[in-house]
Amino acid sequence: MCGIVGYIGQRNAQDVLISGLAKLEYRGYDSAGVAVCTDNGIQVRKKAGKLANLSTELEGTPLTGTLGIGHTRWATHGLPNDTNAHPHATEDGRLVIIHNGIIENYLQLKEALMSRGHTFLSETDSEVLAHLIEEKYAQLSGNLYEAVRQALGDVRGAYGIVVTHVDHREIVAARTVSPLVMGVGEGEMFLASDVPALLAYTRNMVFLHDGDMVVLNDDGYRVTDLQGNAVQRQVERIDWDAEAAEKGGYDTYMLKEIYEQPVALTNTLIGRLHDETGEVNLDINLNPASFKRISIIACGTAYYAGLVGEYLIEQLARVPVEVDVASEYRYRSPLVSEDTLAIVVSQSGETIDTLEALREAKKFGAKTLGVINAKGSSMTRELDDTLYIHAGPEIGVASTKAYTSMVSAFMLLALWLGRARGTLGEDLGRELLHATRELPRLVEEALAPERVEKIKQIAEKYSGARDYLFLGRGVNAPTAFEGALKLKEISYIHAEAYAAGEMKHGPIALIDEHLPVVVVATESFLLEKTISNVQEVRARSGKVIAILSDGDTENARHADDVIYVPHAHEMVSPIVNAVAMQLLAYHTATALGKDVDKPRNLAKSVTVE
Amino acid sequence: MCGIVGYIGQRNAQDVLISGLAKLEYRGYDSAGVAVCTDNGIQVRKKAGKLANLSTELEGTPLTGTLGIGHTRWATHGLPNDTNAHPHATEDGRLVIIHNGIIENYLQLKEALMSRGHTFLSETDSEVLAHLIEEKYAQLSGNLYEAVRQALGDVRGAYGIVVTHVDHREIVAARTVSPLVMGVGEGEMFLASDVPALLAYTRNMVFLHDGDMVVLNDDGYRVTDLQGNAVQRQVERIDWDAEAAEKGGYDTYMLKEIYEQPVALTNTLIGRLHDETGEVNLDINLNPASFKRISIIACGTAYYAGLVGEYLIEQLARVPVEVDVASEYRYRSPLVSEDTLAIVVSQSGETIDTLEALREAKKFGAKTLGVINAKGSSMTRELDDTLYIHAGPEIGVASTKAYTSMVSAFMLLALWLGRARGTLGEDLGRELLHATRELPRLVEEALAPERVEKIKQIAEKYSGARDYLFLGRGVNAPTAFEGALKLKEISYIHAEAYAAGEMKHGPIALIDEHLPVVVVATESFLLEKTISNVQEVRARSGKVIAILSDGDTENARHADDVIYVPHAHEMVSPIVNAVAMQLLAYHTATALGKDVDKPRNLAKSVTVE
Repeated sequence: MCGIVGYIGQRNAQDVLISGLAKLEYRGYDSAGVAVCTDNGIQVRKKAGKLANLSTELEGTPLTGTLGIGHTRWATHGLPNDTNAHPHATEDGRLVIIHNGIIENYLQLKEALMSRGHTFLSETDSEVLAHLIEEKYAQLSGNLYEAVRQALGDVRGAYGIVVTHVDHREIVAARTVSPLVMGVGEGEMFLASDVPALLAYTRNMVFLHDGDMVVLNDDGYRVTDLQGNAVQRQVERIDWDAEAAEKGGYDTYMLKEIYEQPVALTNTLIGRLHDETGEVNLDINLNPASFKRISIIACGTAYYAGLVGEYLIEQLARVPVEVDVASEYRYRSPLVSEDTLAIVVSQSGETIDTLEALREAKKFGAKTLGVINAKGSSMTRELDDTLYIHAGPEIGVASTKAYTSMVSAFMLLALWLGRARGTLGEDLGRELLHATRELPRLVEEALAPERVEKIKQIAEKYSGARDYLFLGRGVNAPTAFEGALKLKEISYIHAEAYAAGEMKHGPIALIDEHLPVVVVATESFLLEKTISNVQEVRARSGKVIAILSDGDTENARHADDVIYVPHAHEMVSPIVNAVAMQLLAYHTATALGKDVDKPRNLAKSVTVE
Repeated sequence: MCGIVGYIGQRNAQDVLISGLAKLEYRGYDSAGVAVCTDNGIQVRKKAGKLANLSTELEGTPLTGTLGIGHTRWATHGLPNDTNAHPHATEDGRLVIIHNGIIENYLQLKEALMSRGHTFLSETDSEVLAHLIEEKYAQLSGNLYEAVRQALGDVRGAYGIVVTHVDHREIVAARTVSPLVMGVGEGEMFLASDVPALLAYTRNMVFLHDGDMVVLNDDGYRVTDLQGNAVQRQVERIDWDAEAAEKGGYDTYMLKEIYEQPVALTNTLIGRLHDETGEVNLDINLNPASFKRISIIACGTAYYAGLVGEYLIEQLARVPVEVDVASEYRYRSPLVSEDTLAIVVSQSGETIDTLEALREAKKFGAKTLGVINAKGSSMTRELDDTLYIHAGPEIGVASTKAYTSMVSAFMLLALWLGRARGTLGEDLGRELLHATRELPRLVEEALAPERVEKIKQIAEKYSGARDYLFLGRGVNAPTAFEGALKLKEISYIHAEAYAAGEMKHGPIALIDEHLPVVVVATESFLLEKTISNVQEVRARSGKVIAILSDGDTENARHADDVIYVPHAHEMVSPIVNAVAMQLLAYHTATALGKDVDKPRNLAKSVTVE
């Protein structure tokens, strides 16, 4: 997490830093800070809270200089306050650093440094780096690059680090795990955690690799590895549209992205479904007969997309699928071999737990496939194949369009595997292909104003609830999980989900007249069973909000409130139903006055463990 | 769910029914009722709430007669009130029935009956059966057995049913899915949902099978199938000790069962670990090399035991294991073949979702093994092999000793498989065997009074919390899940658990200064990672309750409160750690004045879907 920006050139550094950080706020926003080399030495300004706090202060007392580094933070060690914000300077203020990631052995390093006379101002692991580099710098008689390089040799953990020193017109940076991209201008150089921060200034980018170090100065840059050997990295021309990542006419990024789903889904499906032949073309090199097991690995929302994927692939392609939380997978000596296809799912392609799990799977010879949104991201560079979801930039911290596009991509994959492995007949294949092609239209319909208004009313009616329960069965059990996660993320209501049949084995104890229970009960061969579970809730006075297929007045009798959604084939219904879940969460959060684009404690792309 | 008792003989029926129902209250207790054939026809008494309400009423106005049926209910259709309680009588009061289970097509049947002039008093699916049998009875000119048999031909669903009529000195009963056992006395006959209800009167039992019907009269009984063909069922002599199921000196069954764990674990392990050879003897016929995949299927607490089992088996025996919630497994066309070992986990051996999942797995040729507590239960009669956990009767609705015994049984299984399949070396095998043998002693130590007192203080300190988060990693991720379930079940606090590394992908949004977070952080190769997650909680002002290994003062610094547990080998630590979780839940619930043995909405043995 956290966002870094660095600049060296002729412009006013403060302006570049603040405009860049504004584009990175999705990575974290509990505090922010900048350091600029001025005529009076390096000046640091940092403030708890969102970036706006810092920019207001800087408007009052601006910093003048053409070299600087800036940061927007998502706390890992220490509270999000002014002191713990980055950059961190040494006591004499001559050296400043910014650090993303986690230094695992920071306590030992800190104690050793304190015993040698260093005084610490913050509780962060990052400040340790500043002191360590300062010490090396003194020992090395002022070689900044070498000081950083040797200091990094002492630390264990993950980092994106940028360093500057009052006596050097240069920025030294390095990355291990945490991403860093370099922008190459004319007589000026940039650094950032992500491309959008730099698009206003340059489109020529160098993606730094794990273990890369770089020295930037006014004339250019030099990349080495951590041993000091020169390394060549290609300059890439980026043609992304920065405008596409703005809010459009919506109040929030999240709402904009909810409404972008018909387009996003169109992009996910486009060119991949062939009605004439009933075939699916994924443009990947994977041999569909080359594995016996599939292991899906992901975190958070992407994990729930993976659970739908498991269902679809097992049903249509009859390959055993296991879905694992990435943070657990990477440490459990997973049973992987050349017979395994490991599928990683990540919007950003940078989620560190998932990236490390991918590396673990590769180590044991697994074939690898990614279901990924962000092009050129770290995972895509390590995967055998990537099935891009093409959902476009997603800025809202709570994932919406990436989720539905991921699920659609899994449907494509299941169809492709099923046809290729001979487990899915042509007739059912065509039927499902047709159902999949309908998705953009169905989701458009699910977003019709009168439907949204109805969901908004229900959201407001129950917005005083402290807790929520979500239930679903079969292919829509993950829809319940994702619905609960969405509500939890942006409204802070404690929502929890269960496979509906599991409720009576414990969670039913929570049910009383104060508990709204959202039940996904759209058309399904399991609908009668689901309605039995609804009866169990009602018999205990729970309030039932049922998600029903259009026209199902029969089962509406059992619900306190009903959200109708368009008819969809059961296999693709999770995509349509997810939209209702997103809108319920969104309008609950806005009814409660929450900042949905920047929910507390969360960050968009989780690049620490 | 629900408990049935029936009696015909010379004794006062009311006394037999009430004493039997008292032993079955663990199966449900939201209402209770009896019907007795008296000189003034059949008299029905029923009351919402616990059995005590009904017995108080009967003490005032007793029923006199020597034939009767009784019921204690756990609501599925309709609220738990007087009207919906069983038995259900026809309008003329001449026929009464009790029904466990769910009639899936009851709405259609009810509408048809109403159109033919029947009036319904309750909202239950069961009342439909009374009317249907009445109608058949009239058509058949008074053949009660045949009326029941033909009525059952019209219904779809699960049932244990008992019927009596004012003109017949007999009880007609039948079962499909819901259990029924018959007690054979001298000149008297009994029926019940479970053995303990009858132990005070007879030890000669006949376990009815799925699809059995039976007619009881003063002289004996006659068993048939649903087609009316005679069937032979063996009388079995039961030597269980009814006293063992009493509370002993403890306030509650649950507390008694928590303290029984050293003994229960001893019984789980006894005779199975051979120090001399380092071998494990499970006394099962399963060929350890006869399968390539394992599928563990369970519900609730048993599901979490299965998750520990997955970890242990994958690590030690290197067989791919999948764990499924039974209610989902049975409806998802699971990928099962002769290469699959299906392991079902259930305390009662009656959990209907698990039983049906077992049948599904058998249909596709899987080998089957049960991890089961109750001898002679439905599952054990259908399994290839049963690994009994020997935990003794568990009455508290929230499982404690059955959980730790299940996990221990999985450890035995993992050791056995690992040694037999050659994936576990002799040295590590002996080390783990030794660690397993230590468990009763370690759990005894975990129950030392000063430790319990400390947990009690922490429980009281946080008993005002509305929500709780539980975190763990690796083999102790399921410990967190089980800890949250326990707290939820008996205190009704909304506790939820996550694999610690997954917290930052969503649930971290919930964290504020009001949220206690229980973190399992005992000795582990992952401890440093877990402590990083603790830091993330602390950085957002969450309150950390850490479960630490004795002597870990280093990490105590990061916690608001610490629960120390005895050192255990990481692989068996979930068993020791679970004890701390149980005590935390127990003392939170008692601090809040909850009835821990009879938590609202829950029942012990879930025999409806």
